[in-house]
Amino acid sequence: MPTAVVGKGLEGIIAANSGICWIDGEAGVLSYRGIDIHELADNSSFEETTYLLWNGVLPNRLELREFQAQLTSARVLDQRMIDMLRSFPASATPMEVLRTSVSALSFYDADEKDNSHDANVRKAYNLTAQIAMIVAIYDRLRKGKEIVPPDRSLSHAANFLWMLNGVKPSETAVKTMDMSLILHAEHEFNASTFAARVIAATLADIHSSITGALGALKGPLHGGANEGVMHLLLTIDKLGADPIEYVKGMLAAKQKISGFGHRVYRTEDPRATHLRRMSEQLGKDAGQPKWYEMSRAIELYVNKDKKLNANVDFYSASTYATLGIDIDLYTPIFAVSRISGWAAHVIEQMDDNRLIRPRAEYVGPAYPSHYIPIDERP
Amino acid sequence: MPTAVVGKGLEGIIAANSGICWIDGEAGVLSYRGIDIHELADNSSFEETTYLLWNGVLPNRLELREFQAQLTSARVLDQRMIDMLRSFPASATPMEVLRTSVSALSFYDADEKDNSHDANVRKAYNLTAQIAMIVAIYDRLRKGKEIVPPDRSLSHAANFLWMLNGVKPSETAVKTMDMSLILHAEHEFNASTFAARVIAATLADIHSSITGALGALKGPLHGGANEGVMHLLLTIDKLGADPIEYVKGMLAAKQKISGFGHRVYRTEDPRATHLRRMSEQLGKDAGQPKWYEMSRAIELYVNKDKKLNANVDFYSASTYATLGIDIDLYTPIFAVSRISGWAAHVIEQMDDNRLIRPRAEYVGPAYPSHYIPIDERP
Repeated sequence: MPTAVVGKGLEGIIAANSGICWIDGEAGVLSYRGIDIHELADNSSFEETTYLLWNGVLPNRLELREFQAQLTSARVLDQRMIDMLRSFPASATPMEVLRTSVSALSFYDADEKDNSHDANVRKAYNLTAQIAMIVAIYDRLRKGKEIVPPDRSLSHAANFLWMLNGVKPSETAVKTMDMSLILHAEHEFNASTFAARVIAATLADIHSSITGALGALKGPLHGGANEGVMHLLLTIDKLGADPIEYVKGMLAAKQKISGFGHRVYRTEDPRATHLRRMSEQLGKDAGQPKWYEMSRAIELYVNKDKKLNANVDFYSASTYATLGIDIDLYTPIFAVSRISGWAAHVIEQMDDNRLIRPRAEYVGPAYPSHYIPIDERP
Repeated sequence: MPTAVVGKGLEGIIAANSGICWIDGEAGVLSYRGIDIHELADNSSFEETTYLLWNGVLPNRLELREFQAQLTSARVLDQRMIDMLRSFPASATPMEVLRTSVSALSFYDADEKDNSHDANVRKAYNLTAQIAMIVAIYDRLRKGKEIVPPDRSLSHAANFLWMLNGVKPSETAVKTMDMSLILHAEHEFNASTFAARVIAATLADIHSSITGALGALKGPLHGGANEGVMHLLLTIDKLGADPIEYVKGMLAAKQKISGFGHRVYRTEDPRATHLRRMSEQLGKDAGQPKWYEMSRAIELYVNKDKKLNANVDFYSASTYATLGIDIDLYTPIFAVSRISGWAAHVIEQMDDNRLIRPRAEYVGPAYPSHYIPIDERP
């Protein structure tokens, strides 16, 4: 029977044990398996970070090489998946396409019916490689461009940019994408990860879980926020408006500014620190500091006036814009990274499972109301 | 910051307010909008029950006629959806197909980007009609049969059986299916509904929510349980074993018997009462009482020996088997019904939304562990 009434949104409620991610929202600390995100952002790679998330410890050189080999050899898509991508209507958005495609990937995964730990890890390799490929391939298809075959000599970040653009990416672009993938890889029980765990806890399968997670990530209160940031920057730019005056007007009209505030952090989002620096550096290198400068002005104003801090989404917008990436790929790229954390959580959930099934506080018509014959109803 | 540590699975935790369903697990009461499930099962139809779930009150005659008209006019599938269904490999299971297809339906829904109450209701009509059609159409396609066009003169239950079998269903079959759809329509914050709400709460969209719900329903700890029951009955039948002796052996080997026990009910699941009666009646009518009798023997034994009660899944197995429905359609048929409750919950969540974002109790490596250069790792 229900024992605890809590506020809406399960705020502050601990839903399960997890050994993957530790966040101290008051102190602004984010860590994966105990290692601070700042140390990982400065030193690690997406592949190494993913190994850490899945295995709990950093790999030695041999283990990392083996892990990279597994990931690169998973860069395969069944031809029927490509045919399906070609059949989607031009109006289909990349997140709808990714959600649908990941669901369909289970058709072609030999381990679909196997929820053992080892099978889940094999499926996680596949999904990590395939999600990046699908995002890149669909973007090329919708632009009428040729599909770029994967290059197994490239890192995950570099291969993604290669398959997306069809040109070998610059070192700066690879470094930026790789760091962004590290920063977005994992964030405890955010809505998409929690959705993945609720689904996994019925012992469905990892494809069901990740499909559900993609649905949650699509929402503007979750992964969709960086697209909102970029639309704001573009609007200000188009109007030739002063960013601060424009945002002041929005706040006066009680409009929400995307990319600020966070359910968990009471300080600056530690990921924003790195994305701000990347955004600034990229802008300088590209001789296009506009998006960074506009973002920085807005951040300083909102921070001072509303005491709200920029979150992970705020500077990923200007970063991706400067890399020349389409706005509606920002959230799919979040997924290219977050599959790493989602998979870690699905594996952890299934390794020691219990159905996740809370209760509702009933606020409807009193019981028993009665069934009234249709002709006696008002 | 986290304020409450709770057991695994959010058991007994109230996650949100809801006015849709009231359950008293101790007393064995299930009610939709305050009306007892027994009164609805005996008097209502799936259409009327769905109106009740979405609108909070029973419809008058005019409102019901209008509602039925909306539902029947939504019996349309874009030709590209049919082409996609044809393209799926023969090995694709109906639940994988349904999950993938519902995700793809958003491509063709004019309201995809509109999360207003009215647009959500329009999309709910579409999804309710389309899910039943997809289950029926895919089953015919995989058997190499012609697609049966929808018949708008038929009720939801009758049209589903018509599109599935290509013959006009008997009155008993329609009544059985209709009652089964009423019984499965809604059940508060079960795992699939909760997954749908977690996804809806990011303000993604109803297609994302229902896709996630389908993923959760697929799990053997949720909708997949009635398939487990039927596989057990078939195994016993094939071996010519005594059902009680067989189940006794399973229990001695600490194996779980599908279809018994429930997170919420401490009594008989009130839905089982009706399904037991339907299973018995159908068996008699069809001169095929085998599945019912076997089920009843198992139920009496498990109830006496383990003090476990049959749940909704236990007698839906023998009921569907006697209707001649393939085992791997049992869970999809659960979805044909539950879309009704899922939609009610997504609409309720979006009408008064707050992001659902709990916390984890961290049990991983102590923070701060440090990033160790690769050549210094063990």
